[in-house]
Amino acid sequence: MFAAAELGRKLSKEEYDKDEPVLRNELLEAQMELAKSKFPVVLLVGGVDAAGKGETVNMLLEWMDPRHIEVNSFGIPSDEEAERPYFWRFWRALPPRGKLGVFYGSWYTDLIVGGALGDMKRGAMEHRTQEIRSFEKVLADDGALILKVWLHLSKKAQKRRFTELESDPHTRWRVTKKDWANWDHYDDFVRVSEAALRATSVGHAPWTVVEGEDWRYRQNAVARLLLNSLKARLGKQRPKVEAAASVPPTNPSQGKTVLGSLDLRQKLVKKDYEKKLEKYQGRLHHAARKAWEKGVSTVILYEGWDAGGKGGNIRRLTSAMDARNYRVIPIAAPTDEERQHPYLWRFWRHIPRAGRVTIFDRTWYGRVMVERVEGFCTEDDWQRAYSEINDFESQLTESGIVVVKFWIHIGKDEQLRRFEERKKIAYKRYKITDEDWRNRKKWDAYEIAVNEMIERTSTDIAPWTLVEGNDKLFARVKCVKTVCDAIEAKL
Amino acid sequence: MFAAAELGRKLSKEEYDKDEPVLRNELLEAQMELAKSKFPVVLLVGGVDAAGKGETVNMLLEWMDPRHIEVNSFGIPSDEEAERPYFWRFWRALPPRGKLGVFYGSWYTDLIVGGALGDMKRGAMEHRTQEIRSFEKVLADDGALILKVWLHLSKKAQKRRFTELESDPHTRWRVTKKDWANWDHYDDFVRVSEAALRATSVGHAPWTVVEGEDWRYRQNAVARLLLNSLKARLGKQRPKVEAAASVPPTNPSQGKTVLGSLDLRQKLVKKDYEKKLEKYQGRLHHAARKAWEKGVSTVILYEGWDAGGKGGNIRRLTSAMDARNYRVIPIAAPTDEERQHPYLWRFWRHIPRAGRVTIFDRTWYGRVMVERVEGFCTEDDWQRAYSEINDFESQLTESGIVVVKFWIHIGKDEQLRRFEERKKIAYKRYKITDEDWRNRKKWDAYEIAVNEMIERTSTDIAPWTLVEGNDKLFARVKCVKTVCDAIEAKL
Repeated sequence: MFAAAELGRKLSKEEYDKDEPVLRNELLEAQMELAKSKFPVVLLVGGVDAAGKGETVNMLLEWMDPRHIEVNSFGIPSDEEAERPYFWRFWRALPPRGKLGVFYGSWYTDLIVGGALGDMKRGAMEHRTQEIRSFEKVLADDGALILKVWLHLSKKAQKRRFTELESDPHTRWRVTKKDWANWDHYDDFVRVSEAALRATSVGHAPWTVVEGEDWRYRQNAVARLLLNSLKARLGKQRPKVEAAASVPPTNPSQGKTVLGSLDLRQKLVKKDYEKKLEKYQGRLHHAARKAWEKGVSTVILYEGWDAGGKGGNIRRLTSAMDARNYRVIPIAAPTDEERQHPYLWRFWRHIPRAGRVTIFDRTWYGRVMVERVEGFCTEDDWQRAYSEINDFESQLTESGIVVVKFWIHIGKDEQLRRFEERKKIAYKRYKITDEDWRNRKKWDAYEIAVNEMIERTSTDIAPWTLVEGNDKLFARVKCVKTVCDAIEAKL
Repeated sequence: MFAAAELGRKLSKEEYDKDEPVLRNELLEAQMELAKSKFPVVLLVGGVDAAGKGETVNMLLEWMDPRHIEVNSFGIPSDEEAERPYFWRFWRALPPRGKLGVFYGSWYTDLIVGGALGDMKRGAMEHRTQEIRSFEKVLADDGALILKVWLHLSKKAQKRRFTELESDPHTRWRVTKKDWANWDHYDDFVRVSEAALRATSVGHAPWTVVEGEDWRYRQNAVARLLLNSLKARLGKQRPKVEAAASVPPTNPSQGKTVLGSLDLRQKLVKKDYEKKLEKYQGRLHHAARKAWEKGVSTVILYEGWDAGGKGGNIRRLTSAMDARNYRVIPIAAPTDEERQHPYLWRFWRHIPRAGRVTIFDRTWYGRVMVERVEGFCTEDDWQRAYSEINDFESQLTESGIVVVKFWIHIGKDEQLRRFEERKKIAYKRYKITDEDWRNRKKWDAYEIAVNEMIERTSTDIAPWTLVEGNDKLFARVKCVKTVCDAIEAKL
C-alpha cells in the first residue's frame, strides 16, 4: 500500500505555481458553497512524523477562509475527557454542518502509536478498529463528507527530513528524541498503519495515501483531493426525508409481543411499598456514594407511554441521591446547535464525568419511536439507528459506565384513566397536552415500534428493564431496586 | 449579622407538616411559570459545614421538578477550568432562561476558605469581592433572579452537629478530619464570611442568613424564601426593549474625535511590505510557539468598518502560526442556546485553553455598535455594556491572557471604492450584501458609537489599537507587529 507512495513523485515549481491560484480560487468558492449546504466536512490529516502534516494544514488555512475551518488537535486528554468514553472528545470536536473540521491527530492516533510500540494488544486493536468503522459510518450516514489523508515518507526519506530539520536553527526544535526513538520503530509503524488504513478505507470514508517528500507535490495533491471531493459532493443531492407516517409499521410478531407478555396486574399495597422503598433507597444512597468515591458513572434511561409515571418514578431515584452528583436531562426538541450535528451528538454532550449520574427523561430511542412513527426521519435513518444505538451503548458500558434502561409500561385503558384524572386536578393539568391525545390515537403504531425497539436493542450489555406500570408504587420500587442492583454489581 | 441567626429558631412538626403540602404545590406551580418566563434563577446555597446545605438542596429537588433544576457543585477545578480565568467555570454553569440553577459551593468558596485559613491576602480578597459584585450585577442586569442563602450554626451547635453525625454509622463518613480542623478556625470563618456577605449583599443579589440547627425551620425558611421571591418576580414585567434607532447618538466630542485624528494616508510600498511582513511573521511564529510552551494564551479582537480588510488581515496572522494552536471565531447571529444566556456568555465559551490563541472576527463590542445603532437592545443595555466589557477584559488580562484589540479604520470614500470593486470581481461578490449598503447609510451614527466605544473601553490593561486601513499593506504589518509586541511582552 505504501510502496506506491515511495515513487519519488514531484511537482515542478512551474507546475505548482500555475495550479496554485486556480486551486485557491476554486477552494474558496467551494467553501462558500459548503457554508450554504447541509453537511459537514471531516478531514483527517495523518501520516508519519515529519511528512508535512502541519505544513499541509497550515496551507489549507492560508488558502481558504480560516473563519470557517475548525482545526482540532489531540494531545493528552484533559481530565474531563479522560473520565469519559474514548470517543467523547471526538464527538465534542465534530464540525457543524457547513463547516470544515480538520483533524490533526485523530481517533487513529492511539491505535497506531499503541500498536506500533506494543502498548495495545491485538484484541484491543481489532476492537478499536471496529469502533472507528462504526463511528465514521455514523458520521457518513448523517451526511458528512469524510476524507482521510495519510502522508507517507520512506524510512530513508524520514531520516533525511529529520536531519534537514535539525540542521536549521529555526526548525531544530521540531525534532525530538522521541521522534528518533520512533524512527527506530519505523517498520512497526508502517506495518500497523497499513493494517489500520486497509481495515478502515471504505467507500464513505476512504484513505488517500500521499507521498510526503516533495512539498509541492504533497500540498497540491491534498488541495486537489479536497477540492475534487467537495465539488463532487456539492453537485449531488441527498435523498429528501419522506414522511413515513403513512406506512404503518408492520407487526412481525403475529400478536405475541414482549410488551403483551407483561403482567400489568402486579401491585404493591401502600405499607409494603413504603417498607420496600425505604429499603432500596437506603441501598441506593449507599451505592451511589460508593460509586462517586470510586469514579463509577451511571446513565439511566427512561422511556414509556405518556402518563406512565416517569416523573414520579425519577423523583424516587433522585431523592435517594446527593444532588451534587446527578443531573436529570429532559429531552425535548433539539436546539439549533444540536441540529447541526448527528442526532446522537446531543446525548453525548450529557455523558457524565467520573462518579456521576445522568438520568435521561426520554432518550436517543426517540429516533425509533416518535421520529419513526411521525415520519420525522427517513426509514433509512431509523433502521440504521438500532445499530448506532447499540454501538453507542457498548461504548458507554465498555468505558465502565453503568447503563440502565427503563420502559415504563401501562395499559391503554390505564392511560385514558390518567388523562381524564389529570384534566380534573388543577396542578396536574399542565401535564396533559393536545399532543398526548394525538399520540394516543397512534397507540398501535407506537406499540409495534416499541416492541421492535426492545427486540433489537435489548442487548446483553445494556438490557431493557420492562416495568409494569399500572401500579405506580410497584413500578417505583422496581426501578429503584434495578438501579441499586446495577450499580452494586459494578462496585 | 450572624448573631441574629443564633436565636434557636424552631418550627414544630405540626407547623412544618401543615405548611409542607402548600409549599410544594406552590413551588411546583411557580416552577411551571418560570419555565414559560424569560429569566433564569440563580440560587446559591452556602454556609458553615454541617449546617444542612446538602439536605436543603436535596429537599428542593424532591419538592420541585428535578428535570428543570440544574445543580452545580465545584470541587477542584478540572484542568480545562484551571487553564482559564477564575469565573469561566461559573459562566459555563449558568442556567438558561426559565430554569433554576442551584449553586452548591460557588464563586464565594475560595474567598471565604482562603480568607479564613489565611491563604488569600487582603488585597486579593478585596479584588475578588469586587469581581463577584460585577459578576452578579451582569447576571441581575440580564434579568436573573439571584438568591443567596447562608446557613448558619453557632460554634457550639456545629460541634453538636459533628458529634451527632459521627455517632451514627450511616453518617459518620460525612465528618472528616478537615471538618474538625476547620472547626478550630470557626471564628476566622465567621469573621471572613460576615465581611464577604456584608460586601456582597445588594438589592439585586441579597444574602439571607438562615439559622441551620433545626431542620424543619431551615427547610421551611429556604423554601419560603425561594417561593416568595419567585412569585414576586413572576408578577413583575421587565421593561420591554425599545428601538433606540430613532434616537441617534449625540456626539459629545464636538468634531474632534479619536478616529478623526488618524492619518489614513499612511502606506507601504510592496517591497517594504514584503520585507516587513516576513520579519514580523517570523517573530510572531517564534513568539506563538514560546507562548504555547509556557501556557500563555492570547485573545485577539477584530472590529472595523465593513470592507475594512479584516479577513485578509487575520490571514496574515494565522499564516504565521501553527494551525493546532489557534481558532478563528466569526461572530454572527447568536444561536438559540446563546440567546438563553447573558450576551457575554457566547464569548466566554471561546476563551482558549493555556497556550492557545483565539481570534474573534467581530466581538462583544457589537453590543455598543450594531446593537446600539440598530436598536437591538435598550439604551440601558448598551450603556451598561461598557463597564461589563471592561470587567470582562480585566479578568482575561489578570489571568495572564494577552488581549489585543484592533479597530481597522478606513475612510468613507475608500469603503465606497471597495464596495464597487467587490461588485466587479466574481469571487469577491459574495462578500458584499444589502446589509453592507444599509450599514453604510448609517455611517455617521456608527462613527459616533465607535468613538465613544474607544474612549470608554481603551483601558490601560486592554487598549485599542487603531489601525489606519486605507492601505491594506500598512494595516497588515501594523497588526502583525502589534500582536508580536504584545505576546513578547508577556513571555
